Amino acid sequence: MDEIFVGIDLGGTNIKIGFFDSQLELIGRTSVGNKADAEPAVVVDKIGEAIEEYLADNGLASEKVGAVGIGSTGQFNLSEGFMISNPNLKLFQNVPFKAMLSERIGKPVVLENDGNAACWGEHACGAGKGVDDMVFFTLGTGIGGGIISKGELVHGSADNGAELGHLIIYPDGRVCGCGQRGCVEAYASANSTAKRAQEAVEGGAKSSLKKVLDEKGEITCKDVFEHSAKGDKLAKEITDGTAKALAIVCIDMLHTTEPKRIVFAGGMINAGDALLERIKYYFDEQIWTLKKESVEICFATLGEDAGIIGAAALAREAGR
Amino acid sequence: MDEIFVGIDLGGTNIKIGFFDSQLELIGRTSVGNKADAEPAVVVDKIGEAIEEYLADNGLASEKVGAVGIGSTGQFNLSEGFMISNPNLKLFQNVPFKAMLSERIGKPVVLENDGNAACWGEHACGAGKGVDDMVFFTLGTGIGGGIISKGELVHGSADNGAELGHLIIYPDGRVCGCGQRGCVEAYASANSTAKRAQEAVEGGAKSSLKKVLDEKGEITCKDVFEHSAKGDKLAKEITDGTAKALAIVCIDMLHTTEPKRIVFAGGMINAGDALLERIKYYFDEQIWTLKKESVEICFATLGEDAGIIGAAALAREAGR
Repeated sequence: MDEIFVGIDLGGTNIKIGFFDSQLELIGRTSVGNKADAEPAVVVDKIGEAIEEYLADNGLASEKVGAVGIGSTGQFNLSEGFMISNPNLKLFQNVPFKAMLSERIGKPVVLENDGNAACWGEHACGAGKGVDDMVFFTLGTGIGGGIISKGELVHGSADNGAELGHLIIYPDGRVCGCGQRGCVEAYASANSTAKRAQEAVEGGAKSSLKKVLDEKGEITCKDVFEHSAKGDKLAKEITDGTAKALAIVCIDMLHTTEPKRIVFAGGMINAGDALLERIKYYFDEQIWTLKKESVEICFATLGEDAGIIGAAALAREAGR
Repeated sequence: MDEIFVGIDLGGTNIKIGFFDSQLELIGRTSVGNKADAEPAVVVDKIGEAIEEYLADNGLASEKVGAVGIGSTGQFNLSEGFMISNPNLKLFQNVPFKAMLSERIGKPVVLENDGNAACWGEHACGAGKGVDDMVFFTLGTGIGGGIISKGELVHGSADNGAELGHLIIYPDGRVCGCGQRGCVEAYASANSTAKRAQEAVEGGAKSSLKKVLDEKGEITCKDVFEHSAKGDKLAKEITDGTAKALAIVCIDMLHTTEPKRIVFAGGMINAGDALLERIKYYFDEQIWTLKKESVEICFATLGEDAGIIGAAALAREAGR
């Protein structure tokens, strides 16, 4: 049998672990709980045990495992394999996570930012397959990013590149969680889309979303898209604001690393073609007339597995 | 004696040619006139003759020349060595320029976009020396760009990357020559800076620039910076608008390829520290508080020679 590559998505409440063959086909998966105040050594041991248990339960020899990839939120020194900080895991401060995990499981370990891991997953097996220059946005609570240029992830000078949610599109605009004003994340993330709608309704704007707010006490991004689809004028305006903000950052990225394909992922893409079409509409409206652009804008295809697939793919690359 | 590398800056009215040793020290230079409607074959021959003449006049054997680099405005297919179009040279449409020039002079030729060539020059010998991740802006009539990531120029999927003058900073803002609205070029190029001032004065704003407009019939960017230095309120506001626009794109690039250094070049940097300090001021004001950034923002050091030095440096790389 083929070599096995393990892909891990390290979250603050859950650690997802996938086992893949050398073609990156999923063999199986397991998961283990996590806590925000977990000790790094405990997390490392937990991961080691979960891998060993899965292998034993499935009659797979540990020797089959070629390497392990791990994607996580946080700040890193990737070349040294350090996790410098992690908003979801408070005790991960300057932790030599790569070395610790590698020692515990006796395999080479690759560490990667979670946005980059998911981007690499879509590049390896999903919507970015076969494309050497791509840009990736995850649309969730916040907006994450990934850039692949000439077939390689762009990490930046200190492994903090591709923070694409913090491209400024409206200087002096809405305050973002990062402290900047006017970030695309402050307009077009799921949270910001919901918040813009709720603010408008609370401000007295006429909308079918008023009933939602009165009944549930809040408006979600899903509500906004649903009411937009049903024809509510305000919900349409808010949706359009989100689509336009995303179109602007597509244009900005086209003029930067010039991707051939731009892939949107994350919970928000459940809104489907209605949202994608509006993004494309505003892209066409706002893009220059200097020359015709042929960049493809599309949705991711791997769903929540992009992270573990990408981490496994990075583990596979590292072994080559 | 050492090998010689030739760096060429191909313009619509002038062709600058520099001769460099393998340490990229300038040996000497020559130039030859050009015309917007020149035939490609004629231009190629002109360049060949100019190089031969310079070498003969200086007692240098043609065998010493290792390779030739050429930077030019226009759109390219760099891997094939084609110039697809050139706004300054109308007859350069789908011309296999690299092959033509290489055949004429009997040396390897490297073709590059002029912004990238200047960026590479500053990287090789100027303000970006020793920095593997840098971003480069030329502030002139328009705004050009260049990106170096992990020691390599970022060309993009179709050799049109790093069009950094067309990052959109004010959606639905001022119309740019490219057809977009709100490009940084529409605010912060020398032309746009002058134009914003002139519009304000023509619109009745009180300013010492009014006298300039009355006497010369127009306001230049230099006038704006001079009057700003003398304390004119409007000129200061316009200068600040330029500095802030440039700071925003510095932040956007930090969140994209995360340069260690951002280098501004072009005629506008003659404004000196007064301008640089304002760019840094707005960078500090607008950047996130999530973590401290240490990107260096500075001015180029090679002046107008950056293009020929960069072209020669690219020629030298190609031979390695």
